[in-house]
Amino acid sequence: MIGEVANVEVGQAYSTRRQAHEAGVHRPLQAGICGTKKAGAESIVVSGGYKDDEDYGGVIVYTGHGGQDGANNQVSNQTLEDPGNAALVTSYLEGLPVRVIRGSQSGSPYAPSEGYRYDGLYRITGYGSKLGIDGFLIWQFRMEAYEDTPAPTARQQEELPEPAEPSTKGEGDRQPKGNEEPGRVTTTVQRIVRSSAVKRTVKAWHDNRCQVCGVRLEMPGGSYSEGAHIQGLGSPHNGPDTTGNVLCLCPNCHVMLDAGAIVLDEDLRVIRNGEDAGALRTHPKHSIDLECVKQHRERWRR
Amino acid sequence: MIGEVANVEVGQAYSTRRQAHEAGVHRPLQAGICGTKKAGAESIVVSGGYKDDEDYGGVIVYTGHGGQDGANNQVSNQTLEDPGNAALVTSYLEGLPVRVIRGSQSGSPYAPSEGYRYDGLYRITGYGSKLGIDGFLIWQFRMEAYEDTPAPTARQQEELPEPAEPSTKGEGDRQPKGNEEPGRVTTTVQRIVRSSAVKRTVKAWHDNRCQVCGVRLEMPGGSYSEGAHIQGLGSPHNGPDTTGNVLCLCPNCHVMLDAGAIVLDEDLRVIRNGEDAGALRTHPKHSIDLECVKQHRERWRR
Repeated sequence: MIGEVANVEVGQAYSTRRQAHEAGVHRPLQAGICGTKKAGAESIVVSGGYKDDEDYGGVIVYTGHGGQDGANNQVSNQTLEDPGNAALVTSYLEGLPVRVIRGSQSGSPYAPSEGYRYDGLYRITGYGSKLGIDGFLIWQFRMEAYEDTPAPTARQQEELPEPAEPSTKGEGDRQPKGNEEPGRVTTTVQRIVRSSAVKRTVKAWHDNRCQVCGVRLEMPGGSYSEGAHIQGLGSPHNGPDTTGNVLCLCPNCHVMLDAGAIVLDEDLRVIRNGEDAGALRTHPKHSIDLECVKQHRERWRR
Repeated sequence: MIGEVANVEVGQAYSTRRQAHEAGVHRPLQAGICGTKKAGAESIVVSGGYKDDEDYGGVIVYTGHGGQDGANNQVSNQTLEDPGNAALVTSYLEGLPVRVIRGSQSGSPYAPSEGYRYDGLYRITGYGSKLGIDGFLIWQFRMEAYEDTPAPTARQQEELPEPAEPSTKGEGDRQPKGNEEPGRVTTTVQRIVRSSAVKRTVKAWHDNRCQVCGVRLEMPGGSYSEGAHIQGLGSPHNGPDTTGNVLCLCPNCHVMLDAGAIVLDEDLRVIRNGEDAGALRTHPKHSIDLECVKQHRERWRR
């Protein structure tokens, strides 16, 4: 299940992985990533298994899964085909929240002094590969706490099980790590638009192909599109959050729909800046709510 | 000046427009919108001059300027050519914050009981036209308080100068207004990416034309592009926030750059999903930081 778990508060402590498993906060007993390529990642555990991890509290640079021997040494390259890594890519492409659990072994000042702690929902704001400390390719995912997720507080140095590792980012590193302010750090604009269940349904029907221009953005590990409401939610438009009021669009056409540069006529033809731009692409399961189309069109009459 | 005013806290009260003017919170003494098409809107005053306004506290549906007689009756259509309305469109297209001042005349439960009050920064999450109460075309701008802007609290009914007007939205209205939860309401995904000063400089050089694909998104009242960092800010990439590290891109190419579907080679040729997609569009004033290009490219080696 993606998102918060009922009756579990941020900061909830667990002495063992089994307890976190039974609470449904992180279901696997061994794996650090819970999720699938299709559904995205439910939760991750930051517990020091990957020495390239970085933890700034409100921001975590989380190393993907795979390529290790039994002693947590990287002995081969990681890939996005790994189910856990593929799940994190999906979470990025869909803008889905991921539960973060910190374990005392991580050596991070934000880790609990013992056991495990649920630290709330984070979103993935970027990912990429680099050569890790052990000289093999690793994939890393930048995770940022949501605004309403309280940032964990750092323990005092003397409480730390061991001194934090020195920065090992190498190439990517221009600024001394010390400049990184602890706690909430928000330097990344969230480019990705979060998909609700309704939006994901529509996007799946169209296989991420834009209903207006037909483009399908291909990414490492997947493709990307956005669910766009035709009639805006909330006042003054008060459109319904239904599949009939959602289009599968590329980001460009989404921006243009939201600003009225694109409207649809009653025959579902696309009018782009006043000119006919062809028929809206459709799907048998996807019936468009013509009332919403009318509201949107009238909103932009001039 | 866009954004917060030094030494002015959210909730600051002013007995007169002149006091708000002298504080620099809202500079004009008469106009409800302070700003220009080029710079965007600095601030607005919600004070009941336009009967189509709606105020939900954390969300305001603000009616644009113009088309009224001396008695606040709408006697002609509003247009986006009006400087104040054009400023609000720019604030939308640039994702810029707007200072909101509420006046006691507005009849909103969120207005102060007397005088004026600075209520913090809001962003414009949508706009559109409709037929107003008086039967003429009006432009309205949906404004949402930023997460860190404390939502104003509604006064008790008995405190209200007059009962709130019944919903007059007509067509657009599917849900009874009573369902609208007061205070912070966030139903709109912020599609627009906020532009920093650095990004706005780069976008101006390229006149909002994408440096990768050459597209320029035309909107009612302006055009739209996004400033995209080549080397990500923040860990693990720690790229500099300089014009040399920013590209002017359309939203599609921005998403692809962020996910590594687009990288640049050392000669600034665009590599899209492994294939040469032509030379990056350049501008004499815009020298690209090749070190940032290298970092971004290496982040995506596979």
